[in-house]
Amino acid sequence: MVTELCAAATPIPAVSVNNNYLACAPLPNINDDAFINLDQGDPVVMEAYWRRMSERCTVVIKGCEFLSYLSDLSNVCWFMMPRLRDNIKRLHALVGNADTENSHIVVGTGSTQLFQAALFALSSSSPPPHHPIHVLAASPYYSEYQDEVGVLRSGLYKWSGDALEYDKDEAFIEVVTSPNNPDGSIREAVVTRSGSEGKVIHDLAYYWPHYTPITHKASHDIMLFTFSKCTGHAGSRIGWAIVKDIEIAKKMTRFIQMSSIGVSKESQTRAAKIMEVICDSYQNFGSKESDLFFEYSKRLMKERWEKLREVVDQNGFFSLPNFPRAYCNFTKESSETYPAFAWLKCNEKDQDCEGYLEKKLKVLARSGKRFGADASLETCPTATGTDLMKGLGKQGYDIYLIFS
Amino acid sequence: MVTELCAAATPIPAVSVNNNYLACAPLPNINDDAFINLDQGDPVVMEAYWRRMSERCTVVIKGCEFLSYLSDLSNVCWFMMPRLRDNIKRLHALVGNADTENSHIVVGTGSTQLFQAALFALSSSSPPPHHPIHVLAASPYYSEYQDEVGVLRSGLYKWSGDALEYDKDEAFIEVVTSPNNPDGSIREAVVTRSGSEGKVIHDLAYYWPHYTPITHKASHDIMLFTFSKCTGHAGSRIGWAIVKDIEIAKKMTRFIQMSSIGVSKESQTRAAKIMEVICDSYQNFGSKESDLFFEYSKRLMKERWEKLREVVDQNGFFSLPNFPRAYCNFTKESSETYPAFAWLKCNEKDQDCEGYLEKKLKVLARSGKRFGADASLETCPTATGTDLMKGLGKQGYDIYLIFS
Repeated sequence: MVTELCAAATPIPAVSVNNNYLACAPLPNINDDAFINLDQGDPVVMEAYWRRMSERCTVVIKGCEFLSYLSDLSNVCWFMMPRLRDNIKRLHALVGNADTENSHIVVGTGSTQLFQAALFALSSSSPPPHHPIHVLAASPYYSEYQDEVGVLRSGLYKWSGDALEYDKDEAFIEVVTSPNNPDGSIREAVVTRSGSEGKVIHDLAYYWPHYTPITHKASHDIMLFTFSKCTGHAGSRIGWAIVKDIEIAKKMTRFIQMSSIGVSKESQTRAAKIMEVICDSYQNFGSKESDLFFEYSKRLMKERWEKLREVVDQNGFFSLPNFPRAYCNFTKESSETYPAFAWLKCNEKDQDCEGYLEKKLKVLARSGKRFGADASLETCPTATGTDLMKGLGKQGYDIYLIFS
Repeated sequence: MVTELCAAATPIPAVSVNNNYLACAPLPNINDDAFINLDQGDPVVMEAYWRRMSERCTVVIKGCEFLSYLSDLSNVCWFMMPRLRDNIKRLHALVGNADTENSHIVVGTGSTQLFQAALFALSSSSPPPHHPIHVLAASPYYSEYQDEVGVLRSGLYKWSGDALEYDKDEAFIEVVTSPNNPDGSIREAVVTRSGSEGKVIHDLAYYWPHYTPITHKASHDIMLFTFSKCTGHAGSRIGWAIVKDIEIAKKMTRFIQMSSIGVSKESQTRAAKIMEVICDSYQNFGSKESDLFFEYSKRLMKERWEKLREVVDQNGFFSLPNFPRAYCNFTKESSETYPAFAWLKCNEKDQDCEGYLEKKLKVLARSGKRFGADASLETCPTATGTDLMKGLGKQGYDIYLIFS
């Protein structure tokens, strides 16, 4: 049964990985001794679609292109190519998931870099703060936030864990991920303590019609999106932020300058082209439904979730979250959320969930501990990938199962 | 006279910039009121060469390519494409400037990201250090190191300025840039204090035959290179590190994972292709000399320097450094260093060098202060590009003039 699943989301390379499988060659014949690594995600689920659209999305780059660091000195984000900016706006206007009017767009090397740029922009001040600003997210939260915040032991900000348990009257930044990674819930900020100086970063990586109904046009101070989750092109490392305050947009740009002096122009060009093709297909009345990216991908996600629920029900060891139905303004129909990952809970307490998956089913997954679902969190800001992997989820009761 | 110069190196967007000029369109007619911004560098000097080689270097990328985060799970740097790794090794083997045997290659979003990855790898330990490790470079040093080190007020490392003045018995990391940015000098580590635990990062961005004679095959613990300075493709944001210790290479990879989950595959593919074309042209006996990249570029740099020396001599206000001649193992001839920037010194003390350039010649340049050449350094780790620009070099006596 488990061979129906395969990996997707944020990768941490593990030791026992099946290369072909992750590179999304046809699903291999998995023998009884092979492990399936679902801890390591990769958004290759839409590969068949992009294979069909391959020629239409082709970009040709000549030797003399992209010598310059600079793209558009009239823009706050001077390294962003105008064609990418225009297509980001066009895509949001088509889908209706985010308001880009009266805002500034900042491009990043994936939304991971933009998350750090936003932390810098919100916490750096002159003079610098006396204490690092608390960075919070309601549990369960995306498993990488803690390491990304803590990696350099910054004096500007620090990871302070579960936003639901925050009881200080000090400055903080709350990260709101909606739909949430790992549990797929639709979220709003939870810290409303009066007297605290709070700022919010909205990580809307999964607020696209194939994952969840588009119920409103989001319009927050800082919204993060990523090409990896929108179209599945994770190898391009393109993300973007929609930012209301020009001073914050300037500081985010400055951070990316100091961190990598801009963002690959090859990737920017390709992301722009692919967004263009998606938008064109919706605006061309001759398009078949299977050519429409969000319709195709939503059907795929729905089918995967139906299979997954069937498998999990038959097995009886776990349960999956249920998602409320809502009307999607984009697809004009009511549907559930279909996350790119599954948040499994053991039906009986004190069961060794991860051990069961690993030993009985030979499936590697990511423990709930890493998502703050267990109180005994450990920080590993200086750990290498391999060390981190060794320490992962030996005691968790919730298991994070990512699939594509 | 000054209109012979144009900008190149590391960019900081300024206010009064001539777009066409920096985008390397044909040199515009500069009227008497226009400013020439040489503070902001851009390596577009080789554009004519790449225009000629354009077709040969073309890459075609289809819509279904590069969905996966992963490239090669058998390699320490799991996001590096094998084709790029092979061509990096081939290029170094051709030029003879660095030993890649028994080392690990880590790819980054430019060498800027790799510099920070190296700082992290050398300063993170378990348990973490009680005090941040000192990061040093002999003055004059690359003007961006200070901000890049200080930006997040890390608890792992901190900028401690001029390596020549370091007199503590505490752990440190010395950055050795050779040929040095800004003064073009050939350098070695200067801190040899016994009892100190010292580590060294070699930034060899300019150790290529068009900038300086290749006198030996460099073989240091951590060596940084960048595509921007090697071929002039700054928009691609590709850098690489050659690292002896596998544990350091793993930590650098882990840092890049946390910082941007890898490096653009579009850029990796293109860098690999361009390196391949350079190597092929040397291994094809039918190549004309003007088709050989390093020969072409070296001639160009030499011509620019001859013009620059002529202009500076006629002017009489400044002097330029003189570089010793050395035999180049690659070009098989003796020559000087031809840096991608010029380190000008005022001939008379207490002259307002920058004011003279700006007011008399309408040339914007970067003050020596930013390179640690003046004792009264100020750190601006939280400044935006514009703020930084406003505070630049009002009192410096050495002037940094970058050109292409």
